[in-house]
Amino acid sequence: MMFEHDNPILELTDDQSWKLLKNTSHGRIVLTAAGETDIFPINYMVHDAVLLMRSAPGTKLAEITINENVVFETDGITSEEAWSVVVKGTARVLQSGEEIAEAESLGLKTWIPTMKDFYIEVKPERISGRHFILGDQPERF
Amino acid sequence: MMFEHDNPILELTDDQSWKLLKNTSHGRIVLTAAGETDIFPINYMVHDAVLLMRSAPGTKLAEITINENVVFETDGITSEEAWSVVVKGTARVLQSGEEIAEAESLGLKTWIPTMKDFYIEVKPERISGRHFILGDQPERF
Repeated sequence: MMFEHDNPILELTDDQSWKLLKNTSHGRIVLTAAGETDIFPINYMVHDAVLLMRSAPGTKLAEITINENVVFETDGITSEEAWSVVVKGTARVLQSGEEIAEAESLGLKTWIPTMKDFYIEVKPERISGRHFILGDQPERF
Repeated sequence: MMFEHDNPILELTDDQSWKLLKNTSHGRIVLTAAGETDIFPINYMVHDAVLLMRSAPGTKLAEITINENVVFETDGITSEEAWSVVVKGTARVLQSGEEIAEAESLGLKTWIPTMKDFYIEVKPERISGRHFILGDQPERF
């Protein structure tokens, strides 16, 4: 068990949530533009208290340009426990050569090999994490 | 490899996406209400071409009442391949005793044992699925 608690759900502290964020490399980014919500699975990396991702040109980049407010989620589940961390924050595309070179040096991989990709940085504003001890359902009636 | 293809990405057919949806039990539901987007990890089950979930009273149920349009995502990743299926549709809370009894008979489990939960049905309007063959990144420069 990753965290010990008596109730089925534990609300995680920011430190606990960051620990889970740092130990995971796969999540989903939720973008909203023009009333349309989209979700994309994505590899990511924590670096200097931001989340770094790579994206090919396309919907994701276009939507971030329209609305920088994004939601990011990662989770894990085993037969005994489950957890999730949700980050709400702002996204921007890295522009300067220096920033891109620094991101490049971290070795972050994307799902799709492509030459023309961009780095996206998500700066968290709110983080919420929960840990669940999975158990049997009680009888409802 | 779940699907064979030459390009790194394969856009899945609806049939292929449904097959993945049916073989998975863990995903995330994205809800938007009053300009706020939320995402919740959730267990689900496919039944009669809809997705069934259970929820305790709280944010999820309140948001569905305000805005029935939801996005659902599930994915999987191994060292060699990855896939994701995104469903856009409408959600409603099951109300009739008959519907609830039928849902009850399916044995769907929630993460949190609770007595006062509800069944949510998501009726898909659009389904998109992708399968990725994971490979090395090409040099960028």
